[in-house]
Amino acid sequence: MLLKTLREEVLEANLELVRRGLVLYTFGNASGLDRNEGLVAIKPSGVPYEELKPEHMVISDLEGVVVEGKLRPSSDLPTHVELYKCFPNIGGVAHTHSEFATAWAQAETPIPCFGTTHADYFHGPVPVTERLTTGEITGEYERETGRAICRAFSNLNPDSVPAVLVAGHAPFCWGPTAASAAHNAVVLEYVARMASHTLLINAESRPLGRELHDKHFLRKHGSNAYYGQVKTQ
Amino acid sequence: MLLKTLREEVLEANLELVRRGLVLYTFGNASGLDRNEGLVAIKPSGVPYEELKPEHMVISDLEGVVVEGKLRPSSDLPTHVELYKCFPNIGGVAHTHSEFATAWAQAETPIPCFGTTHADYFHGPVPVTERLTTGEITGEYERETGRAICRAFSNLNPDSVPAVLVAGHAPFCWGPTAASAAHNAVVLEYVARMASHTLLINAESRPLGRELHDKHFLRKHGSNAYYGQVKTQ
Amino acid sequence: MLLKTLREEVLEANLELVRRGLVLYTFGNASGLDRNEGLVAIKPSGVPYEELKPEHMVISDLEGVVVEGKLRPSSDLPTHVELYKCFPNIGGVAHTHSEFATAWAQAETPIPCFGTTHADYFHGPVPVTERLTTGEITGEYERETGRAICRAFSNLNPDSVPAVLVAGHAPFCWGPTAASAAHNAVVLEYVARMASHTLLINAESRPLGRELHDKHFLRKHGSNAYYGQVKTQ
Amino acid sequence: MLLKTLREEVLEANLELVRRGLVLYTFGNASGLDRNEGLVAIKPSGVPYEELKPEHMVISDLEGVVVEGKLRPSSDLPTHVELYKCFPNIGGVAHTHSEFATAWAQAETPIPCFGTTHADYFHGPVPVTERLTTGEITGEYERETGRAICRAFSNLNPDSVPAVLVAGHAPFCWGPTAASAAHNAVVLEYVARMASHTLLINAESRPLGRELHDKHFLRKHGSNAYYGQVKTQ
Repeated sequence: MLLKTLREEVLEANLELVRRGLVLYTFGNASGLDRNEGLVAIKPSGVPYEELKPEHMVISDLEGVVVEGKLRPSSDLPTHVELYKCFPNIGGVAHTHSEFATAWAQAETPIPCFGTTHADYFHGPVPVTERLTTGEITGEYERETGRAICRAFSNLNPDSVPAVLVAGHAPFCWGPTAASAAHNAVVLEYVARMASHTLLINAESRPLGRELHDKHFLRKHGSNAYYGQVKTQ
Repeated sequence: MLLKTLREEVLEANLELVRRGLVLYTFGNASGLDRNEGLVAIKPSGVPYEELKPEHMVISDLEGVVVEGKLRPSSDLPTHVELYKCFPNIGGVAHTHSEFATAWAQAETPIPCFGTTHADYFHGPVPVTERLTTGEITGEYERETGRAICRAFSNLNPDSVPAVLVAGHAPFCWGPTAASAAHNAVVLEYVARMASHTLLINAESRPLGRELHDKHFLRKHGSNAYYGQVKTQ
Repeated sequence: MLLKTLREEVLEANLELVRRGLVLYTFGNASGLDRNEGLVAIKPSGVPYEELKPEHMVISDLEGVVVEGKLRPSSDLPTHVELYKCFPNIGGVAHTHSEFATAWAQAETPIPCFGTTHADYFHGPVPVTERLTTGEITGEYERETGRAICRAFSNLNPDSVPAVLVAGHAPFCWGPTAASAAHNAVVLEYVARMASHTLLINAESRPLGRELHDKHFLRKHGSNAYYGQVKTQ
Repeated sequence: MLLKTLREEVLEANLELVRRGLVLYTFGNASGLDRNEGLVAIKPSGVPYEELKPEHMVISDLEGVVVEGKLRPSSDLPTHVELYKCFPNIGGVAHTHSEFATAWAQAETPIPCFGTTHADYFHGPVPVTERLTTGEITGEYERETGRAICRAFSNLNPDSVPAVLVAGHAPFCWGPTAASAAHNAVVLEYVARMASHTLLINAESRPLGRELHDKHFLRKHGSNAYYGQVKTQ
């Protein structure tokens, strides 16, 4: 069996989405990439989470062709693959229909950075993709979704803003590993929830200033980070 | 005892409503139909869910006349029966007062299709019935509720839009089985919740375009569906 | 020890408020009345719920004078006593600071009857009291709160509308027993929650018509009720 | 090992924040002060709560210099230290990014006293700090955050209003002990949640009058308090 450790990490990332209340029934999926092998491990489509085992993960190449696994991969696999090809540093992708992040995607509104919780994880607003064209929808729909995400980052650094809202659909998140992608999905939902409340309390709420946004992001990321323990960060 | 398997399926569908947080106290009810026998199994009225056993389910014919069971059937039985007569392909009905779907019913506002989560299950907005007339309320109220639902689908396909909001009351959902009716009730609540947040974030939110709505619905339903596993779908 | 059964019923009603998520820390209190004895059993003030035992309940007369119990009664006891004197048919009172019902009380807005869930329990809008005067606040504050509730029902039947919102404070609910008072408090919170969502979805939402409001209330209450089982209702 | 009891109290206060749903992952931190020793015990930075033991608490002096502990202290330690120096009666500080209190901080809107739940704990609106200047952000950021809080209380009594909203960040709460600081953080989140709902129900909601605000605060605090049991208050 290929990629035993990656399968376990991907399964664990999928289960983290369940534990944190981000998925209903079989919604959502997380994957991980082994860049040396050029292989992706992803959750199978429509299988109840409580039954998932490492051996159920489906292995595909970077064109989305299954190379090991008896089950169908998640129907969103072509989107994951596009992200791995477009964003060279990422090693994990998580997709959910979590309640508030999905609402922002449905509202086609970028999530402004209203506070330091957001700034700790996302170095700028969380962007929204363009709507797909009719041709993209009726063609290679899932792959085009990945391409639309890629285009949304033409002037953005995906390592600093590890999340996107697909217009009318839901969020995709990523990170160096499947675990970090799932972690970012959990934080995105929390940030989306608080941003929604913020607007309801004060419709004129202002985004954080650039200096504070930088301060918090860089307190946790990069060579001068000083949050957390040295060994574990 | 008649319809042992159907009783168990109906009990399980009722318990699914509880597990998913859709019912308070004895609110809500699910039923199932055996079209060969022309018999319905439904939850009894006002009995605590934790005490329910298969033998408590009440069996009625398609006129709502009880043919087996010592307990009174749910007072909404005549509504269920009308739906079974009006919608020829359905085999299960679930009725809840779930929090957000009920709020949309109370607001007498159809739930627009704001995203693919909705489109995966409901091929169009979830409609609202007309208010009942005084005569309908003081007459065969529960049966008239079923007839009002039937009228709301005079130009809609109930197999593609397996849910309705009864004005000033709450949702009814259905499907080929009692389990699928309960499943649709759970998803409807989730969709209603996200649609409400969507409007709060952006009061000008636009429904999904027809192409993407079709794409997602047909990705999960019909002869070209490719979501899930072949054997389990 | 006086009133052993009533103590147990009152304890159970208090614990129901906890189980249903209506109380934070030591907030809230429920009491029961034995009209034959003219004695009230009520939760002690500020004692953690998990430690409560029947013998901790405090027994007072209808003037609020403690006749048995080593602990101080809930500081709201004088409000409960006023309600027992003003509303001749009630045998239980429950007071919580539950999240949405309290928000309506703080908004000083009666809860309109937007749907049948409301109509099943409350035969009209849930009213709000007048604000207390400075003299009432600095005088017998808790007793004056009870009197303000009583005045709010000068043209209302407390048996048909078993709840009130005290302006700037929180709800009080009641019923024939402590258990029914707690049950009404749980349903009131659910109704308050849905009414809030209803307004957000459609600010022009209309209350239920009188006929449907009557129909649902009388389906569950009075001599022609037909909801639930004959023996248990 | 220094301050064994204080370490246990601080750990317990941190765990209370978790039990009450105020923290996600490693967000948040609580500390306690021994004024005789001039030493603070605080949670280490970025360590999962489920692994925390008393010996992991980090001990610092009132300048924020670590005097015992192998782990890095919470990065917010300089803020805690400033509060201990500015507010002479407090012995505990709790900082969370709890959902609704953080939303009010992000909206840069003081929480009005809409009801008696608020008045029971906070004798006035919960204030918001000024935004920090660029120099403060790029300088001793966490210490400046503490100074901004201190300035926000130049005309307020921190013993009567034991909470603040740091603009664009989140709440800090305090009290005589770490336990009371955590308790106040839990109540603040509940009050923030209800205040938000109150505004949605009625955008013209009025704050509580001064007399009732005083009445409730003084019913629970000071020499004439009569809430709770004599021995436990």
